[in-house]
Amino acid sequence: MKDFELSQEVKMANALRALAMDAVEKAKSGHPGMPMGMADVAAVLFNRFMTIDPKAPKWPDRDRFVLSAGHGSMLLYAIHHLLGYDDMDIEQLKNFRQLGARTAGHPEYGHADGIEVTTGPLGQGIATSVGMALAERMKNARYGDDLVDHFTYVIAGDGCLMEGISHEAIDMAGHLGLGRLIVMWDDNKITIDGDTDISTSTDQMARFAASGWHVVACDGHAPNDIAAAIEEARNDPRPSLIACRTIIGFGAPNKQGGHDVHGAPLGAEEIAAARKVLNWSYEPFEIPSDVYAAWGRVAKRGASARADWEARLAGHAARADFSKAEAGDTSALPAAIAAYKAKLSADKPKVATRKASEMALEVVNTTLPFSVGGSADLTGSNLTRSKGMTSVKPGAFGGDYIHYGIREHGMAAAMNGIALHGGLRPYGGTFMAFADYCRPSIRLSALMGVPVTYVMTHDSIGLGEDGPTHQPVEHLASLRAIPNLNVLRPADAVETAEAWEIAMTAKGTPNLLVLSRQNLPTVRTEHTGENLTARGAYLLRDPENRQVTLIATGSEVEIALAAADQLEAEGIRAAVVSAPCFELFAQQSREYVTKVLGTAPRVGCEAALRMGWDLFLGPQDAFVGMTGFGASAPAPALYEHFNITAEAIVAEAKNMI
Amino acid sequence: MKDFELSQEVKMANALRALAMDAVEKAKSGHPGMPMGMADVAAVLFNRFMTIDPKAPKWPDRDRFVLSAGHGSMLLYAIHHLLGYDDMDIEQLKNFRQLGARTAGHPEYGHADGIEVTTGPLGQGIATSVGMALAERMKNARYGDDLVDHFTYVIAGDGCLMEGISHEAIDMAGHLGLGRLIVMWDDNKITIDGDTDISTSTDQMARFAASGWHVVACDGHAPNDIAAAIEEARNDPRPSLIACRTIIGFGAPNKQGGHDVHGAPLGAEEIAAARKVLNWSYEPFEIPSDVYAAWGRVAKRGASARADWEARLAGHAARADFSKAEAGDTSALPAAIAAYKAKLSADKPKVATRKASEMALEVVNTTLPFSVGGSADLTGSNLTRSKGMTSVKPGAFGGDYIHYGIREHGMAAAMNGIALHGGLRPYGGTFMAFADYCRPSIRLSALMGVPVTYVMTHDSIGLGEDGPTHQPVEHLASLRAIPNLNVLRPADAVETAEAWEIAMTAKGTPNLLVLSRQNLPTVRTEHTGENLTARGAYLLRDPENRQVTLIATGSEVEIALAAADQLEAEGIRAAVVSAPCFELFAQQSREYVTKVLGTAPRVGCEAALRMGWDLFLGPQDAFVGMTGFGASAPAPALYEHFNITAEAIVAEAKNMI
Repeated sequence: MKDFELSQEVKMANALRALAMDAVEKAKSGHPGMPMGMADVAAVLFNRFMTIDPKAPKWPDRDRFVLSAGHGSMLLYAIHHLLGYDDMDIEQLKNFRQLGARTAGHPEYGHADGIEVTTGPLGQGIATSVGMALAERMKNARYGDDLVDHFTYVIAGDGCLMEGISHEAIDMAGHLGLGRLIVMWDDNKITIDGDTDISTSTDQMARFAASGWHVVACDGHAPNDIAAAIEEARNDPRPSLIACRTIIGFGAPNKQGGHDVHGAPLGAEEIAAARKVLNWSYEPFEIPSDVYAAWGRVAKRGASARADWEARLAGHAARADFSKAEAGDTSALPAAIAAYKAKLSADKPKVATRKASEMALEVVNTTLPFSVGGSADLTGSNLTRSKGMTSVKPGAFGGDYIHYGIREHGMAAAMNGIALHGGLRPYGGTFMAFADYCRPSIRLSALMGVPVTYVMTHDSIGLGEDGPTHQPVEHLASLRAIPNLNVLRPADAVETAEAWEIAMTAKGTPNLLVLSRQNLPTVRTEHTGENLTARGAYLLRDPENRQVTLIATGSEVEIALAAADQLEAEGIRAAVVSAPCFELFAQQSREYVTKVLGTAPRVGCEAALRMGWDLFLGPQDAFVGMTGFGASAPAPALYEHFNITAEAIVAEAKNMI
Repeated sequence: MKDFELSQEVKMANALRALAMDAVEKAKSGHPGMPMGMADVAAVLFNRFMTIDPKAPKWPDRDRFVLSAGHGSMLLYAIHHLLGYDDMDIEQLKNFRQLGARTAGHPEYGHADGIEVTTGPLGQGIATSVGMALAERMKNARYGDDLVDHFTYVIAGDGCLMEGISHEAIDMAGHLGLGRLIVMWDDNKITIDGDTDISTSTDQMARFAASGWHVVACDGHAPNDIAAAIEEARNDPRPSLIACRTIIGFGAPNKQGGHDVHGAPLGAEEIAAARKVLNWSYEPFEIPSDVYAAWGRVAKRGASARADWEARLAGHAARADFSKAEAGDTSALPAAIAAYKAKLSADKPKVATRKASEMALEVVNTTLPFSVGGSADLTGSNLTRSKGMTSVKPGAFGGDYIHYGIREHGMAAAMNGIALHGGLRPYGGTFMAFADYCRPSIRLSALMGVPVTYVMTHDSIGLGEDGPTHQPVEHLASLRAIPNLNVLRPADAVETAEAWEIAMTAKGTPNLLVLSRQNLPTVRTEHTGENLTARGAYLLRDPENRQVTLIATGSEVEIALAAADQLEAEGIRAAVVSAPCFELFAQQSREYVTKVLGTAPRVGCEAALRMGWDLFLGPQDAFVGMTGFGASAPAPALYEHFNITAEAIVAEAKNMI
């Protein structure tokens, strides 16, 4: 670049620094160190490379920018303000970290335009970006360069690279050869507790190279060096790590380079000193017009690229398909599921709900061209791969089934990334006990409201011999505790089909299917067009003047029905409620709830802990379930051993009447 | 080795193979592939290197053996049987995976002698072993080579190395230079879904080398090659990875080398074929006496080493200290905490409970010489480092404070390993929201019953501006859902001290302290010698003829007291219950529970979701708390915004009376 342009780029960077330090100071809270340290890298990236249009923040072929080091949120907000995002005026920056502001402490997806993903929990950004970059290649394989041809850029800190999820992410990206993924590592050698060398001595470049990445280093305060590294990364067919050697808090003369600058305001004195060092004579939150103009040119470049793309789309043969996938059009699914359900109620298969899930997926995957399956190396157990699916492989991204490897956390984050990217709808499976391994990413699905579907099989002691490490006991409660997550535990093939319909048509809610290893009979033997699972709970058996209500989920509905039979034989009228989704039941009308639950005493039954059942059960009601960890034995022996039987339900019911 | 010895070692290995395939066949369930593939490595390791004494399975200076690939449990059970562990007779092997047998599907700590750690959830074993190897060096620094001088050997599979936790573990071990840690990787190039190359292409040796490990490869079916690699590893000052190139299911002629042999019985025909290939003419579960004799010599070697060690200990100057630490003698702590509590009730400090925790740790750490602190890079936030603690560093293991780095999962697993190793008592801190990151290891603490202490600060929306990613909302419920885990949320400095006493004196239960970022007044203003927190809940204010009972935990106790004051001003008598530990309250007598809860209507208050509160609240009772995710703003604004206020409690109380 010419000298005057270079000095302008430095000014663009210093504007980021000034806004970051001023906003943190005003909020009396926040993290100035990262934005000031990475300002030069960010300025070069946006000034010379990024293609985004602030006026069309969801434009499908935009470059993605992921701030994995989410605590440096002011970097992102400052960029968005300078680029002219409509919803990021200077007042938002002045209200950094205040109630109702879009400028939350960490970037929150949906709070403001251009925030591609919620970050803050370390490592999530880089792992999510793998899903985004994978989605880009998968869509590219479907629609070609004219419609899909963009980069995913990530800024990651030492914390992101120390977290375990980063290993799953880089291994996956390296294996798949996601060359459009470029991670800029803020190599500042500082963590909260001090220098990085108090806790790590990994050679990160060697580590990434071991996983098949292209690696390059640059001086993170030398614009042309940064640009050369990014250029090299863009041209390499492998995913790239750029080690950006930076000084944390760059520009704050007395504090830069130390860990105190990481997460606290600089203070008035140091800010004044920084203004001098940076030659930045403007008032707090004042940006000179030439800097606005320079950032504005980035936005204009993006707008122009977007217009070109719109023109290409308009004349493209695949326009309709592309747009339907982008819109996530699932309008054909309900009818397909309804037809399939009618068949099921007639056939009455006795299959595990994981098998029923595979059967339902035949319908889902043949109806929705943009569904993408996968498993964390348990395909044959999770039964997530329906007929005709083809594997996504390095260099062959036309497939629709992803081998996520033994990486539950990486899978969940990648699914978030695929869903956030748009145009594809991911689901992925593992054993339910390993929901714990991907819980931080499940939480982000829920917090962001991205409609990812988790397929969790082997859902109770019913998995048998693998024993307590593999037997979920507390997982239903712990997953139901996550706000904005539908936990669906179907009782048979019909409910499983309904659960898939709910999951694949959901808009702002992730869904988690909880499926049995063991075979279960069809309990919904009469066909209903209505999706009863969407009610959360419903009456499966409803005798007049019921004396007791038995409520069960999943594999225990069969047991509750057997108990009702036994009670009936003794002249006791028991209603049976199947309750596949507590969250959806909690959204029903009072009338409906009253009708389902009735006024008779209740017995709940679930091969899990009681926590969470107060939605259905009062202190006088009974619960048949687990009280602690499971054990290793064949499933029938375990149900007997833990006394989760029809006889136990009958005893409780008779005890209460 | 001489030829006849070598052939004997092969027979020792084939005995493992035969027992594994026969036990899996009889159970009709299990994993023969790994035991058969790694039998040669295991035979060489035990025959030539391992120092253990089956008659003294807890002997402190034994070598540790960790089967990280826990699904290969039959390998471990077969070894223990052949070595002559008293509780592992042939009947146990015949009852593999049956109810009540010690031979659970995966190795369960405490189920049988010699099982050093529960494994099965992949990656946990290797990460736990880092804690064991670290404890070995820390104790060596304290007591010298005469008392502490042993190795930690690990067998890990591809799954262990793909899981993210493995990155945290190897980075930590490499940084600390844990040269006594030797990981034998079962490099069989097979995962459940197929060949490893469908999901990974990481060069594992390069990856480990990048983190400072010594790496060496061997032919996993060539005894002398295996032995040479182990010898080299033992002599290298760095932790070692031995890539053992093996064939999964080695010996099963038609199935070996494929993924079908991983997790299913071989079938009678293939077993017969394997017997031929292995030249193993014995009946199922029959072991010839020469093989028993060969394995017996390993046990004898260990017994002899143990006797030598006992003699060294008997004459050792540090004998008393060593034994006290081994026994985990915490008898001095209660009196020290009681004295400190008396001071607190007089001083009435207004501090955050994280600060109160730091203050209590001064007492704990000066009273217990074997406590070991640490944090996942949040020392200044978690306040886990009390005065006088010194950092554990590479080559300097005499310290008592561990910089775990930004590795919550690795920290938790390492703490399990330290506790399992014995002689040290670990605690470690992170933000409570990141409990999700280490949840699989917390679950294992609880399942194994190892008394690890988790210090989880920034426990609610009270952390303020960092926003919903960092604000626990569902975490109290999800952690309370884990069986055998005490979740302690103290309300002030007094309860915090009591919580630490509970945590550090616990025998078979891990404890998790949930601590505030914000300052809280001392609510226990009258000194009690009794540890009231150990009651789980107790009356803090108890007016006669109470009209309403307010129940709160942690930072909300202050709010409940303010509400009681307001109610009193209106002539309404409100009792206030502080409930720092639901689990301990559930263990109290019915009389005590009745006395505390009374019969008046109740209002619960906690800045978290209601789930789990049915221990205290019926359907008619009220709850003041959260109903979804938090937000980014200063803490006082958030409490107002989410209506967690004295006024809200008052309104609910008046509404019910």
